[in-house]
Amino acid sequence: MDNNNSKPVRSVNKGRKTTGNRNAKGGKQIAKNGRRTSPKGKVNRGRKKVGYGKNNTPTVKIAFLGGLNEIGKNITLFECCGDMFILDCGMAFPDGEMLGVDLVLPDFTYVKENISRIKGIVITHGHEDHIGGLPYLLKDCNIPVYGTPLTMGLVGNKLKEHNLVSSAQLNVVNAGDVVKMGCMDVELIHVNHSIPDSVGVAIHTPAGTLVHTGDFKIDCTPAAGTITDLTRFAELGKEGVLALMADSTNAERPGYTKTEAKVQESFERLFVRAQNRRIIIATFASNINRIQQIVNCAYANNRKVAFSGRSMLNYMQVATELGYVDVPQGVIIDIDSLNQYTPEQIVLVTTGSQGEPMSALSRMAYSDHRKVAVGNGDFIIISANPIPGNEKMVGNVIDELLKLGCDVVYESMYDVHVSGHACQEELKIVHSLVKPEFFIPVHGEQKHLRKHAGLAESLGMSSDHIFIGDIGNVIELKKGYIKQLPSVASGKVFVDGLGVGDVGSIVLRDRKHLGQDGLIIIVASLDIVDGYVVSGPDIVSRGFVYVRESEELLHEVRRISTDILVDFASKNVHEWNVIKNKIKDDVSKHIFNKTRRSPMILPIIMEV
Amino acid sequence: MDNNNSKPVRSVNKGRKTTGNRNAKGGKQIAKNGRRTSPKGKVNRGRKKVGYGKNNTPTVKIAFLGGLNEIGKNITLFECCGDMFILDCGMAFPDGEMLGVDLVLPDFTYVKENISRIKGIVITHGHEDHIGGLPYLLKDCNIPVYGTPLTMGLVGNKLKEHNLVSSAQLNVVNAGDVVKMGCMDVELIHVNHSIPDSVGVAIHTPAGTLVHTGDFKIDCTPAAGTITDLTRFAELGKEGVLALMADSTNAERPGYTKTEAKVQESFERLFVRAQNRRIIIATFASNINRIQQIVNCAYANNRKVAFSGRSMLNYMQVATELGYVDVPQGVIIDIDSLNQYTPEQIVLVTTGSQGEPMSALSRMAYSDHRKVAVGNGDFIIISANPIPGNEKMVGNVIDELLKLGCDVVYESMYDVHVSGHACQEELKIVHSLVKPEFFIPVHGEQKHLRKHAGLAESLGMSSDHIFIGDIGNVIELKKGYIKQLPSVASGKVFVDGLGVGDVGSIVLRDRKHLGQDGLIIIVASLDIVDGYVVSGPDIVSRGFVYVRESEELLHEVRRISTDILVDFASKNVHEWNVIKNKIKDDVSKHIFNKTRRSPMILPIIMEV
Repeated sequence: MDNNNSKPVRSVNKGRKTTGNRNAKGGKQIAKNGRRTSPKGKVNRGRKKVGYGKNNTPTVKIAFLGGLNEIGKNITLFECCGDMFILDCGMAFPDGEMLGVDLVLPDFTYVKENISRIKGIVITHGHEDHIGGLPYLLKDCNIPVYGTPLTMGLVGNKLKEHNLVSSAQLNVVNAGDVVKMGCMDVELIHVNHSIPDSVGVAIHTPAGTLVHTGDFKIDCTPAAGTITDLTRFAELGKEGVLALMADSTNAERPGYTKTEAKVQESFERLFVRAQNRRIIIATFASNINRIQQIVNCAYANNRKVAFSGRSMLNYMQVATELGYVDVPQGVIIDIDSLNQYTPEQIVLVTTGSQGEPMSALSRMAYSDHRKVAVGNGDFIIISANPIPGNEKMVGNVIDELLKLGCDVVYESMYDVHVSGHACQEELKIVHSLVKPEFFIPVHGEQKHLRKHAGLAESLGMSSDHIFIGDIGNVIELKKGYIKQLPSVASGKVFVDGLGVGDVGSIVLRDRKHLGQDGLIIIVASLDIVDGYVVSGPDIVSRGFVYVRESEELLHEVRRISTDILVDFASKNVHEWNVIKNKIKDDVSKHIFNKTRRSPMILPIIMEV
Repeated sequence: MDNNNSKPVRSVNKGRKTTGNRNAKGGKQIAKNGRRTSPKGKVNRGRKKVGYGKNNTPTVKIAFLGGLNEIGKNITLFECCGDMFILDCGMAFPDGEMLGVDLVLPDFTYVKENISRIKGIVITHGHEDHIGGLPYLLKDCNIPVYGTPLTMGLVGNKLKEHNLVSSAQLNVVNAGDVVKMGCMDVELIHVNHSIPDSVGVAIHTPAGTLVHTGDFKIDCTPAAGTITDLTRFAELGKEGVLALMADSTNAERPGYTKTEAKVQESFERLFVRAQNRRIIIATFASNINRIQQIVNCAYANNRKVAFSGRSMLNYMQVATELGYVDVPQGVIIDIDSLNQYTPEQIVLVTTGSQGEPMSALSRMAYSDHRKVAVGNGDFIIISANPIPGNEKMVGNVIDELLKLGCDVVYESMYDVHVSGHACQEELKIVHSLVKPEFFIPVHGEQKHLRKHAGLAESLGMSSDHIFIGDIGNVIELKKGYIKQLPSVASGKVFVDGLGVGDVGSIVLRDRKHLGQDGLIIIVASLDIVDGYVVSGPDIVSRGFVYVRESEELLHEVRRISTDILVDFASKNVHEWNVIKNKIKDDVSKHIFNKTRRSPMILPIIMEV
């Protein structure tokens, strides 16, 4: 926050208007916050077309550290003539197997190895799977970061939580701007997505131009701003594109993603249907335009809007500061003043659309919210689809809300949500406009990447011009040439509490075992001289059985253990590991025979 | 198996043809197996219409022990004039919160309390959520069981595993038959579902007729047999129905469930598309008609069929014995002879359509199947939809298969699966035909029950004639009268290994804690006289951190524990619980401050 020796960033458009109607305003806001700094990073005035010689033609290398064969933790490194930069630096959410893990980071080893050559990080938009890894990287590698006003606002907020905001080099740029990364010019291109200020990039390199869509869709009537800059994609296609990387999230879905305007219509209809009931809408906190639509609808229906959920408040604060929401005076009220209004005067916008256990909506559903009690006077709209894996949790929350008497609208048929990602027909349009020589599907699991590759093939691209990669893969490209290079370090680094990387496969395996079967601890104090039992063995179990109902079984465990201890002592065997293994084996077998369960058996021997 | 003093069961149809084209044959097969016994149960020759007097009109009571606000463990008790019977006796699969639980049973307390009045159990079809609880009930309460030939075949198979088959009283009846349960006549009505031989029931009681659809859909062109017996539902509607209980599983889905004939067409198309590759089809082992379709398609395409997965082999054995599959000579081969054929000569039918970790398809996907290695010569069809909660697991299996180079068809757009349950329009047809006075939606979570109630209302039923219940609820009915009585014992009984009911909320809470955060054990031997430390404290941790990287942290735990022990000893405090709680609190706080984690802390003190 204190490095104000910044060179202002100029938006250079070569006769093109900046896309996205709030960029200018947002940019100014960022400048006020003093984060518009660029000590090292350079943003040049226009895109230079860099030619390349006939011999020794330079190549561009792309290293994928995340976002392939997984949803989330998007991060890609681009390298040309010794210069490198990073596109996005996301995190992923843990899956059900990653017990107790809070979030998942990319492995930054390769970044750290190349730190001297890395010119900066360009962020496409402010979602966690694109910015969530930044604090963990920046605390070790203070690389300059570039992004649009809202994106940088959200990054700034995040870095504040990690006490990194004063040292970080955050640079606000806009769609249409070009960021110079050594020999590479990174041009930002406006795209539609489920958060404002999203961009794709065209990377102009001595080896040719690469296009990366970022997360995107094509919405001719978005809730705010303009359609994805198809014109620019078309121009690039005409100029010639070496390779396209495009968002595969919805590559399995035929047709088009419906427009946000449909959601607006649905809200208008449902506000009428709600009649005199309180309206509660759960949606993604980052979907700022969706929230704007709700505010508009509330205003039109003489309702006040309150917000519930920490992340909802955080996003609204940043979005309001930067001018991304436009709220008429007096519409927003504090959640604490809800009881000053009648139900028909209220819209409550809340987190928890994914059924997350600690979220505001879940707390309401389980009658555990400190400030809001819901019941048959409530009309609830879930303006979101469950992310794969969350279906059951979302269903449970809906069931509980229904049991309390709430009316709940959650089905896709009501059009209360549309995706932020392009479906098959939209993807085909971008492919057809960009006409790349090579294609690399990104942002998706294997099935998404494959489907996306299939789409490219259906448009006439030969399969040997398509690269379906994995994290750690590096490819080298130039005109008429694609080669896979040896892979680099990559993987999943788990964050659990304050620990980064100290939970790995062994810890997770133990957690899984403990979680499934519980444990039995067998403690005995043995005489250090003769090995005979001085005290114990005592049996302690947790997560195995009701102890009271299984006294006999635990008594048998004690007897088996005692016999083994006495036997070894009488034979003068004092290798504790041998003894412990014998106890483990025999007790395991006995328990399994009696119960068909396999709790963790932990023998502990103390010498006295 | 040895009680052959059976009275043959006669199909009595009052001029109506028996529905379901295999019932007769199946019935004979069962007789051969000697399970067609009915020592106590009586199957009368026709339905008697039982009138009731003007005064003291009898009522019928319905007690729901499962299947409401949950998917699975369907079990309902009907009672009239002191007679009772049970409809279905299912189990449920554990959800993600029920760590280590193998299956979930109903609470049978209420059944046991009323055992003297219970005349029998009628089973609607052979799915686990309708028969899976039987062995656990029958081992304590040997109640006669009635069901159609395939259903009883599957029940018999299940009881064999529990060594109950010789004592059980299994009675084969057919659609159209009427089973007498004291004063109640239970008439079986043929319905379409995803397993052959499924029935709904009309329960003719002195208080009026109740109709329960069982699991059903309406398929005009099923893979085998005939359409759901709508004629009979219509007749019943004309005669007058007191209450309808109907399957709510798909009550959220608009329109109709597609016909099985569509699946047949898809298989034919996909067999061509597979060309010379091996075809692997994953589907539900119980969907015997689906498997018949696959066999037909294989035969027409000169392919042999092999089966993989234990439950697949089990179901095929029963279905073959009872004549429910019709396989041309030489089509079925053993999985061990796969390598005697070329890929284009093979169809492998496998379990694992839900991505279950230990299933055959999962093992293939993770290259862990003992007999089948898959790769780019394989064309795989997932002929099933993920059951809610399984989406992620199924997705992971598909991803792995794709990575191995397999072609995988799994999307709904290919029509390789249709549901076994009625959608909204089908439900409306049944409601319209049956014209019940009261309606009780069954088989579903709250959202399904509510939607189903909404459908009934949309057809003109008044909401005070609809009862949305919960397990444990009991309602009393007669013409013009519905009343909720005090609830009875109900709940979830967990089966873990051989233990039934010995895992409860405390054990599950511990498992969850251990699974999320791991544990730290602190063991110390104290002098029994002065309380001073003789040995330890030793620190053992599992599932918490990599021990090597956290030596310092564990060292601090040891220091804190030692200080507390010394302090208490010096103060002459020997209450071990006080000491243990102090260690627990202080260590918890320290660990949380340092790591933001909350492992289970287990102090153990030994006296020596």
